[in-house]
Amino acid sequence: MGTLKHIAIINGPNLDRLGKREPEIYGSTTLADLEASLKLSVAGKPVELEFFQSNHEGAIIDKFSQLAEKKIDGIIINPAGLTHTSVALRDAIAGSKIPTIEVHISNIYRREEFRHKSVTANAAVAVITGLGLDGYFAALQFLLK
Amino acid sequence: MGTLKHIAIINGPNLDRLGKREPEIYGSTTLADLEASLKLSVAGKPVELEFFQSNHEGAIIDKFSQLAEKKIDGIIINPAGLTHTSVALRDAIAGSKIPTIEVHISNIYRREEFRHKSVTANAAVAVITGLGLDGYFAALQFLLK
Amino acid sequence: MGTLKHIAIINGPNLDRLGKREPEIYGSTTLADLEASLKLSVAGKPVELEFFQSNHEGAIIDKFSQLAEKKIDGIIINPAGLTHTSVALRDAIAGSKIPTIEVHISNIYRREEFRHKSVTANAAVAVITGLGLDGYFAALQFLLK
Amino acid sequence: MGTLKHIAIINGPNLDRLGKREPEIYGSTTLADLEASLKLSVAGKPVELEFFQSNHEGAIIDKFSQLAEKKIDGIIINPAGLTHTSVALRDAIAGSKIPTIEVHISNIYRREEFRHKSVTANAAVAVITGLGLDGYFAALQFLLK
Amino acid sequence: MGTLKHIAIINGPNLDRLGKREPEIYGSTTLADLEASLKLSVAGKPVELEFFQSNHEGAIIDKFSQLAEKKIDGIIINPAGLTHTSVALRDAIAGSKIPTIEVHISNIYRREEFRHKSVTANAAVAVITGLGLDGYFAALQFLLK
Amino acid sequence: MGTLKHIAIINGPNLDRLGKREPEIYGSTTLADLEASLKLSVAGKPVELEFFQSNHEGAIIDKFSQLAEKKIDGIIINPAGLTHTSVALRDAIAGSKIPTIEVHISNIYRREEFRHKSVTANAAVAVITGLGLDGYFAALQFLLK
Amino acid sequence: MGTLKHIAIINGPNLDRLGKREPEIYGSTTLADLEASLKLSVAGKPVELEFFQSNHEGAIIDKFSQLAEKKIDGIIINPAGLTHTSVALRDAIAGSKIPTIEVHISNIYRREEFRHKSVTANAAVAVITGLGLDGYFAALQFLLK
Amino acid sequence: MGTLKHIAIINGPNLDRLGKREPEIYGSTTLADLEASLKLSVAGKPVELEFFQSNHEGAIIDKFSQLAEKKIDGIIINPAGLTHTSVALRDAIAGSKIPTIEVHISNIYRREEFRHKSVTANAAVAVITGLGLDGYFAALQFLLK
Amino acid sequence: MGTLKHIAIINGPNLDRLGKREPEIYGSTTLADLEASLKLSVAGKPVELEFFQSNHEGAIIDKFSQLAEKKIDGIIINPAGLTHTSVALRDAIAGSKIPTIEVHISNIYRREEFRHKSVTANAAVAVITGLGLDGYFAALQFLLK
Amino acid sequence: MGTLKHIAIINGPNLDRLGKREPEIYGSTTLADLEASLKLSVAGKPVELEFFQSNHEGAIIDKFSQLAEKKIDGIIINPAGLTHTSVALRDAIAGSKIPTIEVHISNIYRREEFRHKSVTANAAVAVITGLGLDGYFAALQFLLK
Amino acid sequence: MGTLKHIAIINGPNLDRLGKREPEIYGSTTLADLEASLKLSVAGKPVELEFFQSNHEGAIIDKFSQLAEKKIDGIIINPAGLTHTSVALRDAIAGSKIPTIEVHISNIYRREEFRHKSVTANAAVAVITGLGLDGYFAALQFLLK
Amino acid sequence: MGTLKHIAIINGPNLDRLGKREPEIYGSTTLADLEASLKLSVAGKPVELEFFQSNHEGAIIDKFSQLAEKKIDGIIINPAGLTHTSVALRDAIAGSKIPTIEVHISNIYRREEFRHKSVTANAAVAVITGLGLDGYFAALQFLLK
Repeated sequence: MGTLKHIAIINGPNLDRLGKREPEIYGSTTLADLEASLKLSVAGKPVELEFFQSNHEGAIIDKFSQLAEKKIDGIIINPAGLTHTSVALRDAIAGSKIPTIEVHISNIYRREEFRHKSVTANAAVAVITGLGLDGYFAALQFLLK
Repeated sequence: MGTLKHIAIINGPNLDRLGKREPEIYGSTTLADLEASLKLSVAGKPVELEFFQSNHEGAIIDKFSQLAEKKIDGIIINPAGLTHTSVALRDAIAGSKIPTIEVHISNIYRREEFRHKSVTANAAVAVITGLGLDGYFAALQFLLK
Repeated sequence: MGTLKHIAIINGPNLDRLGKREPEIYGSTTLADLEASLKLSVAGKPVELEFFQSNHEGAIIDKFSQLAEKKIDGIIINPAGLTHTSVALRDAIAGSKIPTIEVHISNIYRREEFRHKSVTANAAVAVITGLGLDGYFAALQFLLK
Repeated sequence: MGTLKHIAIINGPNLDRLGKREPEIYGSTTLADLEASLKLSVAGKPVELEFFQSNHEGAIIDKFSQLAEKKIDGIIINPAGLTHTSVALRDAIAGSKIPTIEVHISNIYRREEFRHKSVTANAAVAVITGLGLDGYFAALQFLLK
Repeated sequence: MGTLKHIAIINGPNLDRLGKREPEIYGSTTLADLEASLKLSVAGKPVELEFFQSNHEGAIIDKFSQLAEKKIDGIIINPAGLTHTSVALRDAIAGSKIPTIEVHISNIYRREEFRHKSVTANAAVAVITGLGLDGYFAALQFLLK
Repeated sequence: MGTLKHIAIINGPNLDRLGKREPEIYGSTTLADLEASLKLSVAGKPVELEFFQSNHEGAIIDKFSQLAEKKIDGIIINPAGLTHTSVALRDAIAGSKIPTIEVHISNIYRREEFRHKSVTANAAVAVITGLGLDGYFAALQFLLK
Repeated sequence: MGTLKHIAIINGPNLDRLGKREPEIYGSTTLADLEASLKLSVAGKPVELEFFQSNHEGAIIDKFSQLAEKKIDGIIINPAGLTHTSVALRDAIAGSKIPTIEVHISNIYRREEFRHKSVTANAAVAVITGLGLDGYFAALQFLLK
Repeated sequence: MGTLKHIAIINGPNLDRLGKREPEIYGSTTLADLEASLKLSVAGKPVELEFFQSNHEGAIIDKFSQLAEKKIDGIIINPAGLTHTSVALRDAIAGSKIPTIEVHISNIYRREEFRHKSVTANAAVAVITGLGLDGYFAALQFLLK
Repeated sequence: MGTLKHIAIINGPNLDRLGKREPEIYGSTTLADLEASLKLSVAGKPVELEFFQSNHEGAIIDKFSQLAEKKIDGIIINPAGLTHTSVALRDAIAGSKIPTIEVHISNIYRREEFRHKSVTANAAVAVITGLGLDGYFAALQFLLK
Repeated sequence: MGTLKHIAIINGPNLDRLGKREPEIYGSTTLADLEASLKLSVAGKPVELEFFQSNHEGAIIDKFSQLAEKKIDGIIINPAGLTHTSVALRDAIAGSKIPTIEVHISNIYRREEFRHKSVTANAAVAVITGLGLDGYFAALQFLLK
Repeated sequence: MGTLKHIAIINGPNLDRLGKREPEIYGSTTLADLEASLKLSVAGKPVELEFFQSNHEGAIIDKFSQLAEKKIDGIIINPAGLTHTSVALRDAIAGSKIPTIEVHISNIYRREEFRHKSVTANAAVAVITGLGLDGYFAALQFLLK
Repeated sequence: MGTLKHIAIINGPNLDRLGKREPEIYGSTTLADLEASLKLSVAGKPVELEFFQSNHEGAIIDKFSQLAEKKIDGIIINPAGLTHTSVALRDAIAGSKIPTIEVHISNIYRREEFRHKSVTANAAVAVITGLGLDGYFAALQFLLK
């Protein structure tokens, strides 16, 4: 049996309201539902998932600081509105040295022009946009390989 | 007598120092004074005002999340420095589905060029800029109509 | 009893068709209705309102020239399409030295990108956008204080 | 047993040299290897995969025209260098009405700035960039759901 | 009776699917229908029409090279997606020295911003956009004068 | 016999000097000549043409306001120098709800770069540029269909 | 004695208020004073001066149209706010074929950035900016040579 | 002996990991080491140093609000990733009226282009970039003069 | 005697018409003439020249793919109109790992602004522009050293 | 009799070749001719003219440094090619505190776009462009008033 | 005792007038005063200071060429107006391989926007801006470490 | 035997250090070596070569002024850092009317973005970039034809 892998799934601002806010864009699954499904998808595997959501840029950076100390195996992040503006978050991702995948639920290229640019993307290993919640699962699969 | 209306008045970064910071731009009324006057202006009416000030983008988004759950009747926000940069706050306003009016004390068009642009304005119903503290009262009046 | 105050309300291009043109954006109240309501709102007060509408940039500047000579107490202007282009109108506002408030019926930040910029706004004392016709009343209230 | 699904995998300019060209960026698996692995991954399932590679923008558009007539179930496309320039390809994707996923092997946000922009992405349902060849598999999995 | 006039009508990428692709924008007349109607419109006149459609920029340039050798009397081209990007096509039009009219079925100014710019237009004699299929007929009429 | 159609042909700034000003660009036909020819072209048909030329943006907008009240069947406008700058005229066209075709005598894409952009074009149904005076006739034909 | 020369001096928007508006920038000489001084400066010379001021772009273009018919010897224009925006005025100057000198009282390069650009300047023979009212006299001297 | 001087040294996002994160850029001294050395450097002098690090923009602004109330003698800030984006922090510095020096460890002009711009710099008295940790000492020396 | 060197000379879109198209810019030597002269210039030397011209971006990329497999000694390319737009061609040059020199007959800096930028140039070893057909000979000489 | 006035006339790069270089733009009067005429124009008046020409930015700045020490009464400068680029010259003009007029022989707005911008103009009192050599005389006249 | 260190202090255009020019920005200490103080600050230390000021970009580059040959230990440069424009100076700094610190007396971020950009900064080791003349001392201290 | 040809080879800023500065970019041949080789390459031919190097823009323009008087047959210039900034040098080249070829040793398109633009190139007949020192020889060969 393989070594235990530790993966963190971090959701940024406003994703606490997933399933409630603008369901026509983001669907009606709640964040708790999503986290439960992700857990289920690795049931029986040597994988430890850690979930974190915050509307605070600083709290997410604190989290990255902590995870970097622990040297975990991978991070999945949906930076939400911070995607397009936060150099500090970008630096946290880059500085952590942990393979990180950026996920967006909707296709950011089909939305307002200011959402097409990602400040954080070049610190990430990969970016998945538009696969809906499946993006989280695809990212998880990739990090567990 | 009408139904009770619930309105929140949210002030962003540095507005805790209203009346102390750069009085030549913002006047010498403090935030506490302003809040008291707003309360007074609806005295005897079926209106509940809730005040909130924070220097933390995340805390303001948390507040929006909370108010969205409560489905209150209106929000007045002075996003201050976040006006020009925060996509996350813009998303919080849009996602709350609560009619929100953006207020600026000074006329942002008479200040530095980077203050002319508002990232949050298109999530708001309306924007009032340059009416001084009267902007809050005009916004309140509008939301109570 | 206070001194008589003289306020002018100036409406720019295409606002002669208010209530007829694109009612889904501007509503169905006509310009005449609006002017009547504004008058009513100051009935019995020592206020003289003067109304002016023109599709001609030059005629509006002529009006400003005239009002500047008379040194009236305030101007409310909805520059409509001229908002985004007219340096000459901006100069007329600035040169008049009369406190002027710029009003837009719809929220210009929710419309096409070219409407987000206001050439005239930095000559105005304040800008109110998105309050619908109430914007005129809020502006009037402010100027009468 | 489910109905047969027909998925096309289209690779754009220079991907004929996959595994040979710049292996430090793209790895050493050849296009034939990739196609074989994709086939293997759906072995035994009611899925028909069709592969196509061309260095010709026009040939890829011809292919889209053909597939649109057949009304197949999904397309995976790596438009390579055409990503950043081809409006004609973008129109072909949009006009086909077939769910299309754009895949990039390397993370385009970690490369030259001109690769950060995708002309085709807003015609696609989703974009996966930086997952290496796994991007194709993730896309396939998604389209088969 | 006048000398025989030779006019070519060239349609660019994705116009093979005219009448099938996005009929809400382009209508339901097919390319074959359009070509037949154009032929009919000059029936009995000393005019030879030549039709060409290709999804290949190169094939259209080959065609121009050929027509330039033949020194025909006029060309009508709908460059479709190539309009906004192809310097090579622009050079082919300019280099042919044959009077060429650029036609767009829909009004390119009412669509996405990237469609407002035409790279090819300054090599053309004239541009007609938004007249629907009538644009081809108007162009033909003009070239036959 | 069909119902009477009412079409207005509006020419903007400096076109009063058509045939006199820069004949190397605009030819030597005068505005009166053009108007006479247009009239002749519909002789015997149930069409009423109305001509209007003004160097005043405001007068053209007044005209649009008037025509919008009359609900006529179509407008042909050559906005000349206003094409590139007038948001107010653009709003007049859009607000009139009358099908309007924008015509330019010379090909605006072959002239200075600042003439390539049209502020008014997206309010128009169609744009014809570079057909010379024939552009007016093509527009008229289209509107009478 | 030389032939009579006919020179027009045209002043644009807001210059009717010269000497009254922002005297710290424009001085306290009125337009009437300026015109009288200019007249005086050519007293006894075979020169006819014609003065015109308007706040209407269209009226200034009408004037140019009229002067172009008369084929006068020179024009001095201070386009004021129209300098930075009016393509139509630029076309009127260019189309008149009359040598025209653009004058600005203050140095436009020492004011707001949007005043640094002149749309009309390339239609003028020369531009004088910052010489105060002397700019008009220098221009007149030049045109009379 | 001089009056006691109170200086605050504030470090922004990700600097908690100084000495651990990207040592090739930032060296291997930790934040605690740096703070100890700074303390040592003023040993025996009438200086009180106060240290603060946070990954939260809001917490840093809270700190500024607090220090502004205390009216301390100087602030040294390394805003890290917030340098390039935070108008709110810029306003906190400007509003505090306390002489503030911005320090960057690496030369921001030798890094990615988006790091060349500083939003906060014009609120600071001075900026030191590229002196490594010595930048803090130079700033301290300056503030103590 | 030295080893046989293999050099390919590739000409892009519209260069099939060299000597016929716009001779005032490109001269009257045909492509066949040029190729013959180049051959003559290496007569008797251990050099094998291969010529290729295509109006198809894809065909040129196919050619590069083929030449990359053969690992030839050098390529001279005149990408013509593709110079300014083709990322796919740029990638083909870079991916081939064959020393490639970009040649333009006329000086691209003396032509329209859009021709000043070269998308392909940074994949090339060197660029020669404005030497007329001599550019090809200079490039050949360099590659044979 | 008035006090002696000291005026310097400074000509920048390439103006040593005035009358020889591009006479179609600059005329055939040489620099020596121009200087002689300027001298003549103040013959008998209490004016001392000093002439200086250099192709060296540094030498011109040295000159300004010297003249600033002498506190002369005015400077006329034609910065030629340095107009569009030299911040150092701009600073020399501003730092000298001597009233300086910038003169250009041809109308810079009628030439290449990069000549429309003047880096030095906002340090000058006034700018005269397009009056030919008369510009120097007009400037001199103004400085002597 | 340590080895002798050789440091050059280079001042660019207009700094010969330090203490005389715009004292409100640069103070009243002259360049000679500054140089004397710097000398004093290293009195008794094994340090040789060399001073150089020139208004000539070329002379400064000559100096760098000379110092590069001598391989001195460090350079402090205030490039003044050349900061924002001189690629040649930037190349001289980079090419010298001598650690160079760029110093600005005033905070360039508090002045005109064109002063915010530094062309030379990325060739320097560090940049100090806004410390007044202390910037030179801080730079010297750093280079002597 | 042919007439004597006179060619000047001019090298700009920092090229005095050729072979010493950044040899990884520019190689180790010194300027003296290069000049000797160029001389050798025309040994026995009726060609007079003149060499000039300066770090001073002004000195190079002086040289051009001198050569223009002599009307020599050709100039080869490597403007180095001045390439990207000097309008004055551009004017010197254009004004000399002597065929001039611009040479860059390294491929400017493979270096920093600010080196991709050449201000001087459109005054030159041709540009050779990236051929190393061979670029000088190719230019010489061309000028001697």
